[in-house]
Amino acid sequence: METILSTQNNRVKEWEKLKTKKGRKKTGMYLIEGRHLVSEVLQNDADVVYVVATQDELDEIKFEVPNDLLVVVSDKIADHLSDTVTTQGIFAIVRIPNKERQIQEPASYIEGAWLLLDNIQDPGNIGTMVRTADAAGFEGVVFGKGTADIFNPKIQRAMQGSQFHIRLVLGDLNEWVKSFRKANLPVFGTELNPQAKSYQEIEATNDFALIMGNEGNGMSKELLSQTTANLYIPIKGQAESLNVAVAAGILMFSLKDI
Amino acid sequence: METILSTQNNRVKEWEKLKTKKGRKKTGMYLIEGRHLVSEVLQNDADVVYVVATQDELDEIKFEVPNDLLVVVSDKIADHLSDTVTTQGIFAIVRIPNKERQIQEPASYIEGAWLLLDNIQDPGNIGTMVRTADAAGFEGVVFGKGTADIFNPKIQRAMQGSQFHIRLVLGDLNEWVKSFRKANLPVFGTELNPQAKSYQEIEATNDFALIMGNEGNGMSKELLSQTTANLYIPIKGQAESLNVAVAAGILMFSLKDI
Repeated sequence: METILSTQNNRVKEWEKLKTKKGRKKTGMYLIEGRHLVSEVLQNDADVVYVVATQDELDEIKFEVPNDLLVVVSDKIADHLSDTVTTQGIFAIVRIPNKERQIQEPASYIEGAWLLLDNIQDPGNIGTMVRTADAAGFEGVVFGKGTADIFNPKIQRAMQGSQFHIRLVLGDLNEWVKSFRKANLPVFGTELNPQAKSYQEIEATNDFALIMGNEGNGMSKELLSQTTANLYIPIKGQAESLNVAVAAGILMFSLKDI
Repeated sequence: METILSTQNNRVKEWEKLKTKKGRKKTGMYLIEGRHLVSEVLQNDADVVYVVATQDELDEIKFEVPNDLLVVVSDKIADHLSDTVTTQGIFAIVRIPNKERQIQEPASYIEGAWLLLDNIQDPGNIGTMVRTADAAGFEGVVFGKGTADIFNPKIQRAMQGSQFHIRLVLGDLNEWVKSFRKANLPVFGTELNPQAKSYQEIEATNDFALIMGNEGNGMSKELLSQTTANLYIPIKGQAESLNVAVAAGILMFSLKDI
């Protein structure tokens, strides 16, 4: 165990940089925050480099932190590292797994339900969709081109531990769609268009891909043209659309067989 | 039309205060931001006092702003008023309708589906739930005790115009539940508990109440004991729970008849 009290400490400065994509790329590390997430990361097969916490928070938590990982810091340092308004004061610095730093090819044999994210921007939406995919029994989530970075601290926080439960990969969505089609598995696009099929017409199944598109512009035309079916959620009131994470939740729970 | 260029202008200072509950209570006004919302408020039966916009934004918009409401401001003033990282530079100052400042009794004759919010905190979640209730064809949303303020700018923004499509009222949820029960209409509580009924067992219907509870602690025990049935969403993966707005979306679209 060691103690750091100055916000000017070099390591503290390095950790702060992990909030940016550039900083994560340079060091190959990422930062997670909060009691629940740190507890989850320690229970999982992740490469934790440090657990950084205030003494007050250490007195509070109910799980063990290995002594050789522990760095005790001041409240001020915790505030610097934090991405929240009132921090709990506990963080982990974790090495990004090598495979998750690169675009992955879809497996030759695909199983389970997969959520494909096409150019989704909002960290809260992305994290919530990963959490919902976990709850709906999905196998994994593919982060396609233009979708925000898996290791963004806001996304990590919104995932609420689901990042340690299901598979998250960077991927070329065109390749993933091709693999599903080749395996004769359905690929559902989502389109804000009553010309598409209502999701209620689709029977629940186990192995499929569901693509969610950009908050403002929807899915790319190229991907839309390669799906088995494009689905929409019938809007009954005057709202123009649904929040993408809410739409994804309705679709995932309706499409995935128990 | 008038023009204000100083952030020290008294009216600008008054408008800034509308971001706080105290400021809204004192003046009886609220502030909304963004092209879409301002366009909606002007089309609706709302008491708009001013439309405040930068000249660049006025050159951009495709809808008419009545000249006697218009105040042109500098980019700097727009930044001061804004609640977003990059503002579009258009706002409306709107009088809070008298009826929405007071707790309302439930109507003696209840119709349609109503979403009841019990002690919900996060503005994004609340706004998203109102937007989803609109899309699902709900009649209105009741803001119960402890739920954040209807006129909070973040909530107003997340509602995306649905505040002008469905009824939003402050209310005592105990009274609302009693009224539904008296009218022999179902009241569905939500409980993170497999002892509850799976939502999939409930047939879709038109007139009912659905109660969503606090993000961390769920619904109040008192309300839970007064419902017709308490529902849960079966979790298939390892996630501990769903985001409350996602859960509300799944339930509303499943419970409400088309």
